[in-house]
Parts: sequence; structure tokens; C-alpha cells
Amino acid sequence: MARIVMKFGGTSMAGTERIRNVAGIVKRQQEAGHEVAVVVSAMAGETDRLVNFCREANPLFDPAEYDVVVSSGEQVTAGLLALTLQALGCQARSWLGWQMPFHTDLAHAKARIGTIETERLLASMGSGEIAVIPGFQGLSGEGRVTTLGRGGSDTSAVAVAAALKADRCDIYTDVDGVYTTDPRIVSRARKLAKVTYEEMLELASVGSKVLQTRSVGLAMKEGVRVQVLSSFVEDDSPSADELPGTLIVGDEELEGSDMERHVITGIAADKNEAKVTLTRVADRPGAVAAIFSPLAEASINVDMIIQNIAKDKGETDVTFTVPQSDLARAQAILEERQEEIGYYRLIADDNVTKISIVGVGMRSHAGVAATMFSTLAERAINIQAISTSEIKVSVLINADETELAVRVLHTAYGLDAA
Amino acid sequence: MARIVMKFGGTSMAGTERIRNVAGIVKRQQEAGHEVAVVVSAMAGETDRLVNFCREANPLFDPAEYDVVVSSGEQVTAGLLALTLQALGCQARSWLGWQMPFHTDLAHAKARIGTIETERLLASMGSGEIAVIPGFQGLSGEGRVTTLGRGGSDTSAVAVAAALKADRCDIYTDVDGVYTTDPRIVSRARKLAKVTYEEMLELASVGSKVLQTRSVGLAMKEGVRVQVLSSFVEDDSPSADELPGTLIVGDEELEGSDMERHVITGIAADKNEAKVTLTRVADRPGAVAAIFSPLAEASINVDMIIQNIAKDKGETDVTFTVPQSDLARAQAILEERQEEIGYYRLIADDNVTKISIVGVGMRSHAGVAATMFSTLAERAINIQAISTSEIKVSVLINADETELAVRVLHTAYGLDAA
Repeated sequence: MARIVMKFGGTSMAGTERIRNVAGIVKRQQEAGHEVAVVVSAMAGETDRLVNFCREANPLFDPAEYDVVVSSGEQVTAGLLALTLQALGCQARSWLGWQMPFHTDLAHAKARIGTIETERLLASMGSGEIAVIPGFQGLSGEGRVTTLGRGGSDTSAVAVAAALKADRCDIYTDVDGVYTTDPRIVSRARKLAKVTYEEMLELASVGSKVLQTRSVGLAMKEGVRVQVLSSFVEDDSPSADELPGTLIVGDEELEGSDMERHVITGIAADKNEAKVTLTRVADRPGAVAAIFSPLAEASINVDMIIQNIAKDKGETDVTFTVPQSDLARAQAILEERQEEIGYYRLIADDNVTKISIVGVGMRSHAGVAATMFSTLAERAINIQAISTSEIKVSVLINADETELAVRVLHTAYGLDAA
Repeated sequence: MARIVMKFGGTSMAGTERIRNVAGIVKRQQEAGHEVAVVVSAMAGETDRLVNFCREANPLFDPAEYDVVVSSGEQVTAGLLALTLQALGCQARSWLGWQMPFHTDLAHAKARIGTIETERLLASMGSGEIAVIPGFQGLSGEGRVTTLGRGGSDTSAVAVAAALKADRCDIYTDVDGVYTTDPRIVSRARKLAKVTYEEMLELASVGSKVLQTRSVGLAMKEGVRVQVLSSFVEDDSPSADELPGTLIVGDEELEGSDMERHVITGIAADKNEAKVTLTRVADRPGAVAAIFSPLAEASINVDMIIQNIAKDKGETDVTFTVPQSDLARAQAILEERQEEIGYYRLIADDNVTKISIVGVGMRSHAGVAATMFSTLAERAINIQAISTSEIKVSVLINADETELAVRVLHTAYGLDAA
């Protein structure tokens, strides 16, 4: 017998027909002898509807009242899933954030998780009752409803799994696992059996939107084993005890068990970056600070930065990337300060893609980055910027070459399915 | 300064535009110097949507989980009204049923109200904050969400007004008060300045669907002064201190202040009754019990009953009314027992209307019923059954004559507007 937390997203909960499908999956886990808690999102589209109501009511909304409104979406699906499980003959009850309680701090609309009280929850689960928990919501120290911020239900599920000391947290989504790369780009992409938390963080932050980054960080901190799998499966799906999805675990669980593992785990393509180049910036102390300080103050996240070698005239070109959604604001800020910074021209380009290769194997293998550069060079794909971390190498290329680059790298690192 | 509870129904809360109108009305009361608590319904249609979800999820639904789902509608409107009031520059906060708490018993989906804790609420209102309270919902002794049953928000408002010892409970609806009769039938119907609780109960139970009967009963028990008025008023409406609607009060407040009051307060027409006649029932002890016991067991509410004088053969005709919605079930029950009861034919007629004249003045005035019978007789309107209470006389007539009957009675009792 294991203790399992299952989490279902908004697409899986969109309507009573889909909730019935979810209830069937939950029931199979209980029938396999497991203690089960289920964390649910609101029906797809519902949170947007509620957020729009709040914006219409008061554009500068009070986050405490916003939380009262938007938390109702998960309250509805939690009650409906409990009802549906009962219709299938299971014992089930809902536990709202204030009932457990699921304590958080006072930061309404973006609350941080505190202690989750589990005594009554565990007693209920131990008696054979399935616990149904609305994701996203909690209770502040002032006794008011809080929410964790958009997409917070994944994080709720991981937090509940940690508090319950669950054997596993199964996150059901509309994809059946984490792939070596986007299967829509590379048909020979393979589903990964295991990835490490760090790899998942790097893959998520560069565009594999399978899990909320925050939930992966929490799972890593708390050592929660997370499985990503699909809720849209046939009834003759693998039995409850198989692991059909991708398991996200710590390094220690990986080592030894995966002798055949590739140096690179996955390749991500992120089309949401934009490139900004400032030409002929004065090559003097403080020039770079004059560029990036105002962007930081405006909460614009600057990623890759390259400063070209100073030319003979004591001038240099500075290139960096920002999210496409912040490009207009970044341009306005920099153009306003053209004199102060001292540059000649601002050139913006949003037709770029950041390609990243990710893998913990990189730590112990030399030449990983060199393979990337030479593979792209062979296809005459120009690298516009480079950034690296311990387990990731990213390059910026022309967006038109995205598919070609991902495909050739996928082959070069031996990731293609047989 | 007064303390006022205001209640807005689903039509008034249907969408952010209408909620803005409500917020304006609330703000005017506060600006008049009053302490204000507001009780709100869910947006029109929302509770039906949520109830349908529950039915789809589980036709035999667990009322505890049903309450979790359906209570969310009022949670949303409470948060939105607080946000909208803030947008108008008022201080406001929502108080969910479990936060006040609004205690109820354990009878989910039809809970009875217990104690309402008011200490924190009064402190908040005393500091100038408008309290926004979702109607319909409460907290059970087991710490779970309860609801009061459909239309329970009126009752919530009266209960809050009683607990807060409010000076008045203003119930805003889509009509601007209680009329002497339905203005769609009689164009000269007049809006009443005051009615008593008992009159309102009789008018409500025979078809004036302005207020939930249960809320009027509670107001009578607790002595809460209730005003019915419209939320759809122009901006140049009467000032907050006038009473534009109909005030519902105890007898003692009426006496003396309304010398000009008519003996009859109002006339109601109820088209939801059906007449059943069993012919040639054996005129023996137990025959009547054999008819009405099985109907009572099936929770079918029998209203008017007439037993004709026994004919020479020791047989009698028995006529009574049931709600039209129960007619088919009543017929099936009685036809199944034809032999046991011993009757010749069952004749059902749903083309009938119950006309009621209501007024506390009836107690001290003789001849009120006689005027009714003679007025109808003059127009050759046949009376098929009669029932009376202390402050009401009802007659059953052919439905085709409804409008005529109401009009001539309205004139006969001097109710026509000048």
C-alpha cells in the first residue's frame, strides 16, 4: 500500500463528463489498495472568467477580495469530484483550504505556503475516504482566503504530498509525460522515464510548460517524487502500479538506475524571447549599469547578455534578451535614457529562438557544448548569443531555423527514438 | 444614525454592471450616516447552473458536497460587491458564512439557522467598513459548509438583521413594493406603505412571490422591520432616509398609525392549484381518511376540502385541491386505491384559480366574506370551494374568470387607486 496524491488540471476537470473520467482514474488507484488524496484545478476557463469579473469590478482590485472570488472555481470542482466519486461507490469528501487548514502567509493572490495540518486528513484517508482538495487556495493567519497565484494547483499538490509524506505525487495533464523535445517539432522525440528536479526546472524555464516551475522547486526542496502523466487515457491503460508517465526525482535516485542514460536529457526551444542590441555604447565604467538598472527596476527579466569586444574608438555593442511581452516597455525605457546611457542605435529583433540542451550528465562529460556549436555550424545556423549553467547550454538563433536546429541536435545527442 | 441590513437578489447581482448599480445604492445609505451590512444572492442563473452540475455528477447527491458547490455562487458576488464598493471609495470586506461564523444545524441543503456571531462584524461595521455577506450559506457544527435551501438569502438577511439588532432590513427586488394585487391584472392596484407579517405570509403563500415565506416568518418571530423595495431605481431616487418601498411590520406598529387603512389589505390570485373530485364516495367512517392519508404520506399538500351533503344512497362527493405540480402523482395514488376507498369516478380539473382576500382588519369587521361572495355572484362567477383563516378568505373559481374576479373584488373593497 502506498499513499498517493493525484492532481488534475483544468482541462481534465472541464465539465461533469471529464470529471467522471477523472473519478474513474482515482477509483482505480484506491482499488489498487492505496490511500488517495486528490488536488483539483478549476474547470478550464473558469479562473479567467472570475479574474475578468474582478477586473471589471475594480481594476485596482483588493487582492483579499480577489482571492474570495477566484478561489470559488476550485471549490466547485472539489465538491463535484467528491460527488462523482460517491456516484462510483467510493467514500469521498472535500477539504477546503480553510477546513484542513492549508496555512499560508498574508500575501493575497500570491501567497506562500506555510504548514498544512494533516491530522484530520490522515484520519479520514486512513478510514478509506478519498480526500478531495481544491488546489490554489489557502488560509491566511488573519482567517481569510488566500490563493497561491496562477497555476498554483501543481504547487498545492506537491505541498500536500510533502505534508502527507506521500510516496508519490501524480500530476495528470494533457500530455503523457516529459519528452526529449517537443514531439510536434521532432517526430522521433522520446518520452523520458525519469528526469531530475534540476533538469525539469531548466526544461520548464525554457519552455516545456508541463509543470509550474514553482512546484518543481518545492518538490526538489521537499524531496517529493512527482510523476507527470496524462488523464486522457484509455480504460485499458496500464494498471495503477505501473508508472506510465515521467518520474521527476532527485539525482540520487537517478544514479545507478540509469546506466544507459544519455548525457543530454532534453532539448527545449523558447520562442518568447526578443533580442535588443545597443550599438556604439561608450566603453566606460557604469555604462552597463546604466542600461540594466532601469530594466531591473521595471521588473524586466534580462536573460542572455553579450558585450562585444571594444572597438578602437572606445565604443562597444551590447546585446541582450528580454521576454517578448516586455520588449515594448524595455525599448521605451532605453530610448528615454539614450543620452544618459550614450548609445547610437537601438535594434530590436523578436524573430529569435533560444535553444537549450539540458542534462545532469553534462557535469561529468566534457565537450557537450562543443558538440552543440559544431552541429549548428555544420548546418550554417548562426549563433547570436550563448549562455550556460551547470546543466544547460543555451544559444540564441534566428527563429526561422528553430525546427532544423532542434532536429539536428536531437540526432547529434543520440536522443532519436529507434 | 441607524444600522441597516440591505439584501440584493440574483437579478440585481447579475453581472458587474448591475453590481455597480447595487454598490451605488449601498454607498448612498452609508453616506446618509448609517452602519451598513449587505447580504447578496448569487448572480441570476448561477445557482441553477451549479445545481445542474451536482445532478449530473451524482443524481443522488450528498447534500454536504452539494452545499460546497452551490454556496460558491454567493461567495463570488460577495467578493465582487466588496471590490466594487472599494472602487467607489468605500471601505468594504466580505464575510463568508464560516468566517462570521453564521452557525446552522447539520441539515445540509436545508439548514436551520442557529447563532450568528456578530462581535467582529460589529467592530468592522463600527469602524466604517461595509460588511458584505453571502446569503444562503452557513457553517455546521462539524465545520462544514451548509446552505439554507433555495431562496434562502432573504432568510439570511433577516437573520443577520436580527443578530445585529438592525433598525431595518431592506430587501431589494425587481418590484418596488407589495401591491394590493398584481398590477399586471389590475392597473389601478396600489403600492402598500405597510403590511403586517401575517398579511405578508398569507399573501406570499397564495402567490405574491415578493419574499420567501420563511424569511417573513423569521422576521415576525424576531420582530425585524423589513422593507421591500426595488434596486432598479433612477439616480435621482428618494434620499436614503425615505422609505420608498413597502414596510412589513408587526400589528402593534400598524395600529394607530394607519387610521385610513382598508379592511382588506390585498388580493392574491394563485393559478397553481388543481381541483380533484371523487364522486359517490361511500358515506361511512374512515372513507375520508382512506383518501387523504396516502396523499399525506406522499407529501402532497391538500388545501381546500369540501364534502357535499350525503345523498340518499349513503354516498357523497369529495372535492379538494392539490398543487398542480402534484396532480399526476395524486391521481395515480388515488386510482391505485379506487377499490379500497370506494368511489365511482375521479374528475381532475387544473383550470382553476384560488382567489384570496387578506387583511388583519377582517378580525374586527363583520361581513367581509359576505361582500366577497355577493360581489362574485353579481358577476355570475361560480364559487367551487371556500376556505378561511383568521385574516384570509379564499375561494376557488374557474381560471378563465381570474382577471374579472380580482378586478371586481379590488373595487368592492375600495382598493382602487384614485
